[in-house]
Amino acid sequence: MAESARAFVPGHVTAFFSVHRHEDPARAGSRGAGITLSDGVSVTVEPAPETQIVIDAEPTRIEPVERVLEPLAATARVTVESALPIGAGFGVSGAAALGTAIATNRGFECGRSENELVRIAHVAEVNSGTGLGDVVAQARGGVPIRLDPGAPDHGRLDGVPETGRIEYVSFGDLSTAAVISGDTDHLSAAGESALADLRARPTLSRLFALGREFAREADLLVPEVTEVIEAVTDAGGEATMAMLGRTVVARGSGLSEAGYDPDACRIHPAGATVRTDR
Amino acid sequence: MAESARAFVPGHVTAFFSVHRHEDPARAGSRGAGITLSDGVSVTVEPAPETQIVIDAEPTRIEPVERVLEPLAATARVTVESALPIGAGFGVSGAAALGTAIATNRGFECGRSENELVRIAHVAEVNSGTGLGDVVAQARGGVPIRLDPGAPDHGRLDGVPETGRIEYVSFGDLSTAAVISGDTDHLSAAGESALADLRARPTLSRLFALGREFAREADLLVPEVTEVIEAVTDAGGEATMAMLGRTVVARGSGLSEAGYDPDACRIHPAGATVRTDR
Repeated sequence: MAESARAFVPGHVTAFFSVHRHEDPARAGSRGAGITLSDGVSVTVEPAPETQIVIDAEPTRIEPVERVLEPLAATARVTVESALPIGAGFGVSGAAALGTAIATNRGFECGRSENELVRIAHVAEVNSGTGLGDVVAQARGGVPIRLDPGAPDHGRLDGVPETGRIEYVSFGDLSTAAVISGDTDHLSAAGESALADLRARPTLSRLFALGREFAREADLLVPEVTEVIEAVTDAGGEATMAMLGRTVVARGSGLSEAGYDPDACRIHPAGATVRTDR
Repeated sequence: MAESARAFVPGHVTAFFSVHRHEDPARAGSRGAGITLSDGVSVTVEPAPETQIVIDAEPTRIEPVERVLEPLAATARVTVESALPIGAGFGVSGAAALGTAIATNRGFECGRSENELVRIAHVAEVNSGTGLGDVVAQARGGVPIRLDPGAPDHGRLDGVPETGRIEYVSFGDLSTAAVISGDTDHLSAAGESALADLRARPTLSRLFALGREFAREADLLVPEVTEVIEAVTDAGGEATMAMLGRTVVARGSGLSEAGYDPDACRIHPAGATVRTDR
């Protein structure tokens, strides 16, 4: 009965966040805000005699993907195609988990609701230590504000009602696991303060400004990122750092106008969706 | 400072619902489920010396739109362009209200969040008696399940994780105000029962089947709608009635295959969004 199915999940760049641990992974997560991107991750799930995960034709292991297949009782070949660099702050692991949940539900006729699939992917990501807030943001689309941490029924979201072009450059990874498993008290205080400021005036311009302040406050800036953000600001644009990666995102043509050769996409209006030809 | 701005809101067809009254309009609403459509409503808001609402170049009055401008303290010319017939169960009044909220927030720099704008439009629609659940569904996109009634912070949503082509034919209006202001106990019991059934197995096929059952149970069927639904069923397709209008929606090419000449669109993956050229 099971058949092949496909899902698309937008990328997600967090501008600032605070860490909220909880023994129940569905209640653990982060508060904060970020931007979902029309560049994202496509996931194809096909029934197979044993589970195999493939990125760019290479067999690999993605723990959150394995942890999604388990509660859905699916044995499958999962093919992940990412338009975005991996480990660089674009939420690719969360996207792979959520895309696997949605495509598996379709292909294996699991009969789960969207909230249930988001919960499964969020729990898989939290238990793998690979992320705290990407999945719920990627399920929503737009410019998500994570008001309360956790999966649907626990977490609560709002959004900044804006859209537009986004540019990005990436110099590689920062370890999410190393940062979020360490002492996050100072980081979380900075994230909470930024969230209160954004809620008082939820605009994209303020989100970028608060992201820059958070990166500095939380001591997460790396020299190459600082240099690019300053160059964009000097050219009259707005940029911030992707949490967590050596990545800079800019509004509009901010990076091009500062002389860089960025990738470009748009704020994605929709959350993750199943893809179908019908 | 204020400038012109534009928003797009998907159409929304409710398959079944129950009525939930409350003295606080942000807590009033409906539970139920429906489908958002890529055919929808575009709203342009321009600063003007006095408020004027225009549909298809004709000045008109749309009470929910007026009730949205008031809390945003905006005096504007509002131009509503609808790809969908008005009053026929496509949520055009909710779309006009929500589109006005989003475009006004952008053009007049009101600095509200998405949840706040949805609340303003939902309250406007409830207070006008023109609808109970379209606005929150249209803000979400996809195939929304309204688990709990009301605006964000009160209402709670889930979704059916499916997409695809939708066809529709319409024979005109049924009065939403007349139905939802009358005795709705029997209707609501049928709606609650359908919701429980859908939550147990949230698929599009079940949503259509439950919609047909609800229309019959709630005694809302009209002869021309019954005839078309039966023709689609006989041709092997799936169709249901739009609540509340003399309108039939079908999955895939169900109406074409039954010999009708329908309009066609898709399930819309995204909620309402501001439109920008940047």
